[in-house]
Amino acid sequence: MSEPFVSFLTDFGLDTAPATCRGVIWSICPNARINDLTHSSRQFAIRDGAVLLWSSLPYQPVGVHLVVVDPGVGTARRPVALQVERGDLLVGPDNGVLMPAARRLGGITAAHVLENRALFRDLVSDTFHGRDIFAPVAGHLAAGVPIGDVGSTIGPADLVQLDFPEAYIEDGTLVTSVLFVDRFGNCRLAGEASDLAGLTGTLEPGDAFEVAIGDRRERVTWHPTFGAVGPGELLLYEDADYAGLAIGRNLASAADELGLVNDVGVRIRPA
Amino acid sequence: MSEPFVSFLTDFGLDTAPATCRGVIWSICPNARINDLTHSSRQFAIRDGAVLLWSSLPYQPVGVHLVVVDPGVGTARRPVALQVERGDLLVGPDNGVLMPAARRLGGITAAHVLENRALFRDLVSDTFHGRDIFAPVAGHLAAGVPIGDVGSTIGPADLVQLDFPEAYIEDGTLVTSVLFVDRFGNCRLAGEASDLAGLTGTLEPGDAFEVAIGDRRERVTWHPTFGAVGPGELLLYEDADYAGLAIGRNLASAADELGLVNDVGVRIRPA
Amino acid sequence: MSEPFVSFLTDFGLDTAPATCRGVIWSICPNARINDLTHSSRQFAIRDGAVLLWSSLPYQPVGVHLVVVDPGVGTARRPVALQVERGDLLVGPDNGVLMPAARRLGGITAAHVLENRALFRDLVSDTFHGRDIFAPVAGHLAAGVPIGDVGSTIGPADLVQLDFPEAYIEDGTLVTSVLFVDRFGNCRLAGEASDLAGLTGTLEPGDAFEVAIGDRRERVTWHPTFGAVGPGELLLYEDADYAGLAIGRNLASAADELGLVNDVGVRIRPA
Repeated sequence: MSEPFVSFLTDFGLDTAPATCRGVIWSICPNARINDLTHSSRQFAIRDGAVLLWSSLPYQPVGVHLVVVDPGVGTARRPVALQVERGDLLVGPDNGVLMPAARRLGGITAAHVLENRALFRDLVSDTFHGRDIFAPVAGHLAAGVPIGDVGSTIGPADLVQLDFPEAYIEDGTLVTSVLFVDRFGNCRLAGEASDLAGLTGTLEPGDAFEVAIGDRRERVTWHPTFGAVGPGELLLYEDADYAGLAIGRNLASAADELGLVNDVGVRIRPA
Repeated sequence: MSEPFVSFLTDFGLDTAPATCRGVIWSICPNARINDLTHSSRQFAIRDGAVLLWSSLPYQPVGVHLVVVDPGVGTARRPVALQVERGDLLVGPDNGVLMPAARRLGGITAAHVLENRALFRDLVSDTFHGRDIFAPVAGHLAAGVPIGDVGSTIGPADLVQLDFPEAYIEDGTLVTSVLFVDRFGNCRLAGEASDLAGLTGTLEPGDAFEVAIGDRRERVTWHPTFGAVGPGELLLYEDADYAGLAIGRNLASAADELGLVNDVGVRIRPA
Repeated sequence: MSEPFVSFLTDFGLDTAPATCRGVIWSICPNARINDLTHSSRQFAIRDGAVLLWSSLPYQPVGVHLVVVDPGVGTARRPVALQVERGDLLVGPDNGVLMPAARRLGGITAAHVLENRALFRDLVSDTFHGRDIFAPVAGHLAAGVPIGDVGSTIGPADLVQLDFPEAYIEDGTLVTSVLFVDRFGNCRLAGEASDLAGLTGTLEPGDAFEVAIGDRRERVTWHPTFGAVGPGELLLYEDADYAGLAIGRNLASAADELGLVNDVGVRIRPA
């Protein structure tokens, strides 16, 4: 019989806060297998957390997935637990951070507000709901408490939504924008590699595109791997971690070079 | 039957040293559940390690707690194992780092010097006692070796003491000092939020205080959460991680702004 | 019965990539005990990864050891699994990163190319072989799949070699070079502490040596611990983590002070 599986993603960084939450989980469910997805999600950045969760959960065993990227802690935002089609339970704040991953795991089949204080720690602080609400509820769910015990149901439509930006083709140009900037400065864009093939019919290593950001125009080639371009050169590629179209720079930061941050518009057409 | 629980805190940073110690523990006690509290405790800073341990241990399951913040490695400082009232065993150097947590877990019920070389690695280096002494002893204790087997008893009064600074009220002013600066520059002060209420009778969000550090005077308001003040503004709040009074700055470093490091004096009175 | 043991070392850093790989392993082998050796190995630096693995594996339980330091991902470099004399299985790219550790664990007793796509993920990306090839194969090996099932054998002599630099004595001088620079700027040199004793007959704390790097000459003393010299002073010592001769600087970076990077030559003779 395998152990209950819990994944855990926060923006807490390298101090003791994640370990304190794991201690709470193990105090409730001593045989939980915990996988720390990352605790270095950009602080207070809900969409960054959502991208990282969306990227990693398809590769995780079915289990309880705990997410605390929660700039609204201490406000009226609701804590929630979501059941998804694949069979997982997602626990976190109702601020959208769980939503893209929930869709990717087949969609929400049940949603509940965390209300049952018997599943919280006895004392709930104003600022550390990870320890006092989210981790203990995740521990109880991993230990087999039914999701219905955590609190009343809410309709999925009443949850705070978070949609990733989308790409579209207009006049032979792919109109996209920055979805996520990773710690190396690589920029995941809205859309897929197949969208570039949609512009050109085929897509071969070395195919050249004009990338427009504001008034700036750059000639950038498509390659499957960074090593195909020289140090400091830009390339368009398919990002395997984040599963989609990306712009990067070999051994350097594309974000710094191009002034890219989340949601900056990028227009791409054959050069 | 649940697995033996081991928590682990060091100032080793992100290299392989913590993993090497975990390998030693698992070689001795293959079914240990290990929770890394943090390995980013400020290097050689005994009190910082003590604060982090004190903050996190109440949320951990009863078990063996291994701490290696050990600037005195290679000197005559003794390695020790302490049994505390809650039932835990604390293993680390006798430099005070274990003492506040031991008090918080009910106080020391037995203390032993690590002397039994049969429980160490065969070769003991001059500089890596974490791997060669502390981790193997922690592994043996987790595997069920009685604490009495590690070495002779010592009286708790003979252990190196470490007391946290204390706060007191004098002439209507709370006289306190910096206990710990976290990685965001938030400063945990000696004393509790209730000490501020002791100055004013009640304590409500928005209550204003004069904070004096040396010759500098700042007007700072009390709020339960950072979001209640503007970016860059100071606030007094109750820190949930470190369980007490703190001074912070929304989205910025209070320590940098105010020149605060451990033990700098801070005087607070109603404004 | 103890759980299958898997160690895991990469240059992926602090994002979700290591957790994604662990999820893949746990999806295949739910009861694996995973020890993350480090994910902060210097990016694309094969020898740094080799040194860290070589340093830590002797302290790990016998098991499957997964290494992804793989600047050649997407090129023709082969993925391999090696069986060593101690009984471990090493999984990673055939770029030399596994070789020094394999020697230290008794030498290679069988080597196989990873070819059996039934043990990979269904979709193999161009850039994330850690997730798509190496982690699933490691998971299957931990779950008991025989190494012969991963692919055809290759002779150990056909593997890409990686030798650590060596030290020798010439005209009363120890001729060595930098093997590894750690994150504090301490420099592990080729050779052992006993090589210095070979120059002087004995080796006592405080013994003085002339260290020559290019045209620069420094007088440096031998001590077992950093605390024996003043802040900012250089010392020669025996590094316990990396098991050999090293040059460091108390509370500062020897690498910065002396301009040392991998393979810079260092000549040491009695002063």
